[in-house]
Amino acid sequence: MRAVPDPSLLSNLRAAARELPVSGIVEMMKYGHGRENLIPLWAGEGDVVTPEFIREEAARSLREGETFYTYQRGIPELREALARYHARLYGGAFDPERFYVTASGMHAIVIAFAMVLNAGEEIIIPSPCWPNAGAAAEAAGAKPVFVEMEFGEKGFCLDLAKIASRITSRTRAIFINSPANPTGWVAQRDELKEVFALARSRGLWIVADETYGRFHWRGEGLAPSFHDIMDPEDRIIFVNTFSKNWAMTGWRIGWVEAHPSLGQVIENLIQASTSGVAVFLQRAAVVALEEGEEFVAAQIERARRGREIVSAALRATGRVIESPPDGAFYSFFSVEGENDSRALAFRMIDEIGVGPAPGTAFGPGGEAFVRLCFSRSPDSLCEAASRIANWLKP
Amino acid sequence: MRAVPDPSLLSNLRAAARELPVSGIVEMMKYGHGRENLIPLWAGEGDVVTPEFIREEAARSLREGETFYTYQRGIPELREALARYHARLYGGAFDPERFYVTASGMHAIVIAFAMVLNAGEEIIIPSPCWPNAGAAAEAAGAKPVFVEMEFGEKGFCLDLAKIASRITSRTRAIFINSPANPTGWVAQRDELKEVFALARSRGLWIVADETYGRFHWRGEGLAPSFHDIMDPEDRIIFVNTFSKNWAMTGWRIGWVEAHPSLGQVIENLIQASTSGVAVFLQRAAVVALEEGEEFVAAQIERARRGREIVSAALRATGRVIESPPDGAFYSFFSVEGENDSRALAFRMIDEIGVGPAPGTAFGPGGEAFVRLCFSRSPDSLCEAASRIANWLKP
Repeated sequence: MRAVPDPSLLSNLRAAARELPVSGIVEMMKYGHGRENLIPLWAGEGDVVTPEFIREEAARSLREGETFYTYQRGIPELREALARYHARLYGGAFDPERFYVTASGMHAIVIAFAMVLNAGEEIIIPSPCWPNAGAAAEAAGAKPVFVEMEFGEKGFCLDLAKIASRITSRTRAIFINSPANPTGWVAQRDELKEVFALARSRGLWIVADETYGRFHWRGEGLAPSFHDIMDPEDRIIFVNTFSKNWAMTGWRIGWVEAHPSLGQVIENLIQASTSGVAVFLQRAAVVALEEGEEFVAAQIERARRGREIVSAALRATGRVIESPPDGAFYSFFSVEGENDSRALAFRMIDEIGVGPAPGTAFGPGGEAFVRLCFSRSPDSLCEAASRIANWLKP
Repeated sequence: MRAVPDPSLLSNLRAAARELPVSGIVEMMKYGHGRENLIPLWAGEGDVVTPEFIREEAARSLREGETFYTYQRGIPELREALARYHARLYGGAFDPERFYVTASGMHAIVIAFAMVLNAGEEIIIPSPCWPNAGAAAEAAGAKPVFVEMEFGEKGFCLDLAKIASRITSRTRAIFINSPANPTGWVAQRDELKEVFALARSRGLWIVADETYGRFHWRGEGLAPSFHDIMDPEDRIIFVNTFSKNWAMTGWRIGWVEAHPSLGQVIENLIQASTSGVAVFLQRAAVVALEEGEEFVAAQIERARRGREIVSAALRATGRVIESPPDGAFYSFFSVEGENDSRALAFRMIDEIGVGPAPGTAFGPGGEAFVRLCFSRSPDSLCEAASRIANWLKP
């Protein structure tokens, strides 16, 4: 049974599957894999191993033999911990029945899309955007409608009139990722209200990805959240992940937050997609929520310092167009005279050993940019910044 | 943000999501949850914790800090171990590029269906069948076409003429689960050839679920497999799981096997659905494949003994219609005078503390049956069998 490339097999697959885009981020990771001295800033993950107390909790659960099937919605302890965590962040009381454990932030998006999007229907996605959101819509046979954000002095801005103009009879939802990957855009409270007003007036769902809500560089504390302004009856589904706050990228665990009346539908969709998440992963997630605040604070401070290092170095070159991000942990910049970000990214890997993600990976409006993740050690960011600065010196 | 049941939110969901069936197995588990002295035989899992050497490997990987993103197709070590495992079972050489790691056997089915089924298209599923296969098709907006198997003296049989008669211009695939859950049916080599011939002549894909291939009670060794008769260019996608052989139900890890030319499509579908499986789970899966043979052999012997205990007790009642299963680890039987298996299952929980899965959970043709899992300790099976025998005594 040797590998024989067979176009006829491939051509018999479903077109929507065959035509899914290759991740432009993974393309870079494969290209740069195994190179010595390379500083990898392509992925949305840091260089810090998950804290020991979280890893140990998973190991403890394994030792105790928690290896059987469990609740499709997530173990009650984790759903209660998520409710307490949200109450601490946003105030008020949260019902544990609002929370559903998923096999990743990605899987949370898949569940949210499966709740609202039929094949052939449309979801509006401000762009540039993390590519997997659009890919998930395409995999479901639906159509991501990318609406380019405006880029100006203050960086990227949402153009609500443009979004409104792209709503059709097939539109079912708007995907709002704030703080945004890759642009660093953060919706202000008034913008969130305007988005909500638009969605309400047109009967649309909002799928809200506030994964980076705690990585906020404009003003104090959390980024504005739909939690601050929503009514209980609003058509909103939150998607989130343990990956970023707690350095758990490789664990594959996330959550959906939605109105409790939707619980049975969400349970059924989890059952029919992954059939749940390992108990020992969920135990670790409980400990992350309950004992992880010190670690999260350190992660945020590290990213804040990373943002300063990268922004200062880029600014000093005089050849880079960047508006320091208001949130998340990416620098998204363009270089004067360079319009092909994919070619630029390959050259950065080859010539200076810094691995970025090309803006082409992030859809319309991203083509001229490259993305660097600055959730990393100051030392390696200083080294990367200095390599870039020397390389770009006129 | 208190729970307020809101029909208007629910009614605004996508119909295919809203109408997904509640799992009839989970319904029983919830009903019986927490009862003293209950013997739970409803789920497809045993009572044995994952072997210590497998759990320890995951803990070791965690201690060593393997908590970062990894390959979407699975780590090379696991794909190579899967290739060696298949070569050991089926002979010949297997290319590691045929194997893709998924977030469960369920997720493997979702990937396979996403490869071949558009919304509105049809997949033929012999029935009674594990309910999640049909649910996954429905969640994708496709249509499961259940074709009832014949039930006679020799138990359930595939009716190929009936299957052929249900093929339409919208049919894209046939789902073949052999050995079968819940019926215990095992396709003989000639039947597999006939299914293949039909699929080839009509241009259909086969999605082959051979999860229970090693739990085979008719003749020696493995159940017949599509691996025995396939050509490399056949349109077949295998789905499988670590859950049953290695008592890893709660881990959520499985695999897809398909032609290497389909690799990029499968990688993209994994990326856009769960974005991969934790490295530390995959390390444990490698150890299961490479060092787990003694454990698997013991699991098979335990199920063989369980089958004898349950079959003998049921036969002795004189009121039970059962053909001892040729494969898998379920007894699927009906009781004279009892046509409502869901009501019967509730009564078994209430009156004798034995928790079955009702046949109504398994689609057309299953309504008159109940399913008991016999992959359990002889003691608890003897107790369950004796409770059932006393209860059914005329």
